[in-house]
Amino acid sequence: MSGSTLGHLFRVTTFGESHGPAIGCVIDGCPPGMPLSVEDIQPELDRRRPGTSRHVTQRQEADQVEILSGIYEGLTTGTPIALLIRNTDQRSKDYGNIVQTFRPGHADYTYHHKYGLRDPRGGGRSSARLTAPVVAAGAVARKWLAQHHGVSLRGGMAALGPIDIAFEGWEHVPHNPFFAPNTSQIEALEAHMDALRKAGDSCGARIVVEAQGVPPGWGEPLFDKLDADIAHAMMGLNAVKGVEIGAGFACVAQPGSVHGDELTPRGFLSNHAGGVLGGISSGQDLRVSLAIKPTSSIRIPRQSIDLDGQPVTVETFGRHDPCVGIRATPIAEALLALVLIDHALRHRAQCGDVRVTTPALPASAG
Amino acid sequence: MSGSTLGHLFRVTTFGESHGPAIGCVIDGCPPGMPLSVEDIQPELDRRRPGTSRHVTQRQEADQVEILSGIYEGLTTGTPIALLIRNTDQRSKDYGNIVQTFRPGHADYTYHHKYGLRDPRGGGRSSARLTAPVVAAGAVARKWLAQHHGVSLRGGMAALGPIDIAFEGWEHVPHNPFFAPNTSQIEALEAHMDALRKAGDSCGARIVVEAQGVPPGWGEPLFDKLDADIAHAMMGLNAVKGVEIGAGFACVAQPGSVHGDELTPRGFLSNHAGGVLGGISSGQDLRVSLAIKPTSSIRIPRQSIDLDGQPVTVETFGRHDPCVGIRATPIAEALLALVLIDHALRHRAQCGDVRVTTPALPASAG
Amino acid sequence: MSGSTLGHLFRVTTFGESHGPAIGCVIDGCPPGMPLSVEDIQPELDRRRPGTSRHVTQRQEADQVEILSGIYEGLTTGTPIALLIRNTDQRSKDYGNIVQTFRPGHADYTYHHKYGLRDPRGGGRSSARLTAPVVAAGAVARKWLAQHHGVSLRGGMAALGPIDIAFEGWEHVPHNPFFAPNTSQIEALEAHMDALRKAGDSCGARIVVEAQGVPPGWGEPLFDKLDADIAHAMMGLNAVKGVEIGAGFACVAQPGSVHGDELTPRGFLSNHAGGVLGGISSGQDLRVSLAIKPTSSIRIPRQSIDLDGQPVTVETFGRHDPCVGIRATPIAEALLALVLIDHALRHRAQCGDVRVTTPALPASAG
Amino acid sequence: MSGSTLGHLFRVTTFGESHGPAIGCVIDGCPPGMPLSVEDIQPELDRRRPGTSRHVTQRQEADQVEILSGIYEGLTTGTPIALLIRNTDQRSKDYGNIVQTFRPGHADYTYHHKYGLRDPRGGGRSSARLTAPVVAAGAVARKWLAQHHGVSLRGGMAALGPIDIAFEGWEHVPHNPFFAPNTSQIEALEAHMDALRKAGDSCGARIVVEAQGVPPGWGEPLFDKLDADIAHAMMGLNAVKGVEIGAGFACVAQPGSVHGDELTPRGFLSNHAGGVLGGISSGQDLRVSLAIKPTSSIRIPRQSIDLDGQPVTVETFGRHDPCVGIRATPIAEALLALVLIDHALRHRAQCGDVRVTTPALPASAG
Repeated sequence: MSGSTLGHLFRVTTFGESHGPAIGCVIDGCPPGMPLSVEDIQPELDRRRPGTSRHVTQRQEADQVEILSGIYEGLTTGTPIALLIRNTDQRSKDYGNIVQTFRPGHADYTYHHKYGLRDPRGGGRSSARLTAPVVAAGAVARKWLAQHHGVSLRGGMAALGPIDIAFEGWEHVPHNPFFAPNTSQIEALEAHMDALRKAGDSCGARIVVEAQGVPPGWGEPLFDKLDADIAHAMMGLNAVKGVEIGAGFACVAQPGSVHGDELTPRGFLSNHAGGVLGGISSGQDLRVSLAIKPTSSIRIPRQSIDLDGQPVTVETFGRHDPCVGIRATPIAEALLALVLIDHALRHRAQCGDVRVTTPALPASAG
Repeated sequence: MSGSTLGHLFRVTTFGESHGPAIGCVIDGCPPGMPLSVEDIQPELDRRRPGTSRHVTQRQEADQVEILSGIYEGLTTGTPIALLIRNTDQRSKDYGNIVQTFRPGHADYTYHHKYGLRDPRGGGRSSARLTAPVVAAGAVARKWLAQHHGVSLRGGMAALGPIDIAFEGWEHVPHNPFFAPNTSQIEALEAHMDALRKAGDSCGARIVVEAQGVPPGWGEPLFDKLDADIAHAMMGLNAVKGVEIGAGFACVAQPGSVHGDELTPRGFLSNHAGGVLGGISSGQDLRVSLAIKPTSSIRIPRQSIDLDGQPVTVETFGRHDPCVGIRATPIAEALLALVLIDHALRHRAQCGDVRVTTPALPASAG
Repeated sequence: MSGSTLGHLFRVTTFGESHGPAIGCVIDGCPPGMPLSVEDIQPELDRRRPGTSRHVTQRQEADQVEILSGIYEGLTTGTPIALLIRNTDQRSKDYGNIVQTFRPGHADYTYHHKYGLRDPRGGGRSSARLTAPVVAAGAVARKWLAQHHGVSLRGGMAALGPIDIAFEGWEHVPHNPFFAPNTSQIEALEAHMDALRKAGDSCGARIVVEAQGVPPGWGEPLFDKLDADIAHAMMGLNAVKGVEIGAGFACVAQPGSVHGDELTPRGFLSNHAGGVLGGISSGQDLRVSLAIKPTSSIRIPRQSIDLDGQPVTVETFGRHDPCVGIRATPIAEALLALVLIDHALRHRAQCGDVRVTTPALPASAG
Repeated sequence: MSGSTLGHLFRVTTFGESHGPAIGCVIDGCPPGMPLSVEDIQPELDRRRPGTSRHVTQRQEADQVEILSGIYEGLTTGTPIALLIRNTDQRSKDYGNIVQTFRPGHADYTYHHKYGLRDPRGGGRSSARLTAPVVAAGAVARKWLAQHHGVSLRGGMAALGPIDIAFEGWEHVPHNPFFAPNTSQIEALEAHMDALRKAGDSCGARIVVEAQGVPPGWGEPLFDKLDADIAHAMMGLNAVKGVEIGAGFACVAQPGSVHGDELTPRGFLSNHAGGVLGGISSGQDLRVSLAIKPTSSIRIPRQSIDLDGQPVTVETFGRHDPCVGIRATPIAEALLALVLIDHALRHRAQCGDVRVTTPALPASAG
């Protein structure tokens, strides 16, 4: 209820602050009998880890995960899986100057008004560091989805600040620091980031994630539509200001005779729906697009107020990602996996014995 | 869990199908002691009602609401408020031809695969008719928000198909059939709709809603961010394919030195955040933008399959809105009200006795 | 959250007051494809109905249920099933004298302090009349449990006031007004009730319910143990002050060498556990016992206070059950069914594909 | 949903197994601004700790708690409080002989059928060791209840096996190993335990807990009655087979003219209700009684089956409490505190601004 839990049947509850002793999560509801070890989780954490290129925060964290419970002889037991990540590179002093003021665009002001106090060290609970346990939990969800339903997830950057990134192929994503499905624009992206860093400014990004192999029938019809839960999860990611499914805002200008994806025995002829119709998966690829705002902590001086409401100028030093969108791809994939496994289990609960004679169509006719 | 309930503390559970005997909802968690009568609810239902112009479905429904419980001597008692709306203009025969086939872009195919069967009359549960109980519940939420916090809500259409609608003033919204904050483009909008109707096609729309007077501090920090819950509610509205908060997707190209809203003792200098920072309200106006896809049920023939997976051509006759976005404004306002009251109560639960000496800033410095 | 919903996956939300226009419930999460009609529900409502003997309230209510949604061509569709029961025999004047005072043992005083106001007509929301929608929902659960798992439920009265009722056979339950599994003591029970009625007093009862055919494996290991959820549901029934599973309080004096039920290939040798071990069903009969307190509304004068805190004498006239336990058996069976179906679906969600080679034992070796 | 979370607004999610690396919990929803440190929690853990007398398990665990998050400069921040307790005295070999068989009365058989596999080391997740995080979370709840509402909790043993323990005074509870409110029978209790230990058998217990200072108005009217949630929490405690509120099962034989507690301006004249009327607190002392079954793990040989369904004889060696009820008092107090704080916050959410002119009565007139 206080917003630290995601999911209903596969529930992930996270805890921790940026500069406290540890962060982590408890997963409740993981089906029993699935092989699981640190080796399934650590690689995803490593994809998200800070300090891996000059374009992200230079904080050094191993992000080494420890499994505290829920596994016996290498298999999930169906009981809670607790995951612990110790914080190792805390530098509370870096953040001392922001205790008395509110950084523009940051959660300082709103946390202060909600709670009456806040942990200012590295943004405390509002730090992007708290996405690490989400990625860890997502790795568990991902493994189950792959094993039980053949679902696979992937994603990448579609725009960095003003630069639209042409899609050239998913295979390029692991080979550049931006998760860009592209080779030709990487230099331009690096130049953009270098200029920003020099200027002390920051930029936003657009991220695309998709899931393949989702069977038709997952999602609820009214309020917990599959796309509604995806929007909830994605908008819950730090700095996200917009979410689109399929055609997204482009659907406004499409006539119905174009937007509605035709069905043929060979498959769907298009995918403007992004894999969801009436809140329920159609078997087409699930496609989600996210807008991520520029980092709030910048070196450029900005107007603000202090705790007494008096005017001050704020410049933020310390170690910050100049574009939080750069590391967002593995996090968005994890969130998508978490929403999908929850709906997979919800489907099994209510409709576990439904049998349909109509064949499920191929995702696309192409 | 099966998606018919919205909210955690102010919970709205809806029921009903387009052509069943009745639709309605149960509101659990409304605070006691608030004056409430049909007169508070009916006007909002009338704003959403079909059949009020030639540009929407011609189905005639009085949408007369009956309060079954939860009120004693004109006051809410704190117990469930059940609202009932009888369906009066059911014409099941209009829909007989779609039982054996799946309309492109419609929920037919996904309901079939999820449940193994579906109520095909008027779209059954997936009908936009089910937004009526949401609007009714929203009216209750709205009254409480106005009385207890001075919160007001408003909205309107920002684009109809390819036509961007210039904002000229909120006062124009009630005076045209499109909820457009505009007078100069109404003829163009009508001409667009007339042409579509003649062509048997449909179009999308973009809707903007906002809330004024929300105090700072509502929303949860991680997964149930205020904007995440707004995104969840809005994406749960039929046909929505995209949700933006504040600058939305435009934030991608904004540098941090532009996007982050500066604070001064006189108020915020801009509102790119759309009233939410770190998932928690800032006291600025909450601004939400929605993309609504074109209606799926059109008269233009389209390829599809039947229950046996065989190819068929589908044309949809009957009474359909050629643009479901036209009636979406009061619904989106209701959803926003429902999210806000839920977070108002959540805030009171956990932080009901927090006192902050820092003054809450004016929403804007202007 | 405000206590009008029971269950997580098979959710029942009730509404209504004793003397409002109607009572009812919305069931969300019922699996699709099950045949369901009023004929499945009405007989259970008739078992609970008032006015059927001189030993219960003389209020005349047909308790005729109407299904408003969730059924298409005689089958459940997986969408919410709304059930409506109109109140027909409201006599608000009977209750006018209790508006200004608090009846000892009744919820008047606590509702007043919680909500600041209350609907005093017939106890409003706290009336035993609100168990009718529970019975209706229970009938739906019961049908599914029987069809999908062969689970059957039964119950009866074990004590009426100071009279312990000897168990003679379940077949006697429908043939006396007390739901007693007995023929030889019926006259004594009637005499006891007649004497109480003459004295203007009331009495308590002990009810036993059980479920047969529950497979091993339903229930959660820690907080939502199957017996914990049963205790929650039963203690939520008006007037219940105690709940036992299996041996119940008698287990305190049993040594472990007696209490622990031995297992043999032919089945369990005893059932002190009442069918639950570690919160999870064992396949033995589920056995639950309830203590129901005497009706609070009696004609004997009692000390109390009025709204100003001044001393008053209260005598309660009007139509009240002199023993609310008499009609409690079908309600307790319904509650047990509702808990069981919820756990059946929970089990299917998390452990739907678990296969165990160890055979499930017969419920008993006898 | 999988039963590892207790509470709705003050949510406690536990994790861990008896012989895994650690156990612990995450508390989400604790109000901000409350002073909290290990010193508030450790004393309660020490009351529950094993190995403190010869009458409990000889397992040596320091049960030293570490706070991982949610505290800044000594105050709760409103974000999740994660508590970690490392297991130090794991002896997996002690339990090796029970992997292939099912102990009568134990959760072995039901876990096996639910999950298809289980962690057999020390009972795994079903171990009473998992009550330690509950006690830790309860200490946090308790502090808040005391500070904000002056609520205090206490409890003790009312029966040990066949021996009823006379109530002589709460002040005696800390001064004997049984939490008995008694001095005169301690020798008899010790003799009983010594005899049991010699015989290799075990016994049950009855525990009473109460809360003083609960204001009137906490609890929900229908399904989440305060007493229903108490019953749910208590029945969720390992080995509990019965729960009573106030008079409990004794109410069956009480006439209404005795049971209903009369009100006078000086207070209530009796407390058969146990502090709850209609599911809502009355301001009287909350009184709860629990039946705890004898420990299942005993040295006396018993019939059972193995994984193949073949008959075996089981004797359980290793370190077990011969009466799990002995250490149950601090756990039951913790559970009561957890239910109360949850309802305190629920009350604040819905009824936070209710003002009543009728004075709240003293708990008793005595």
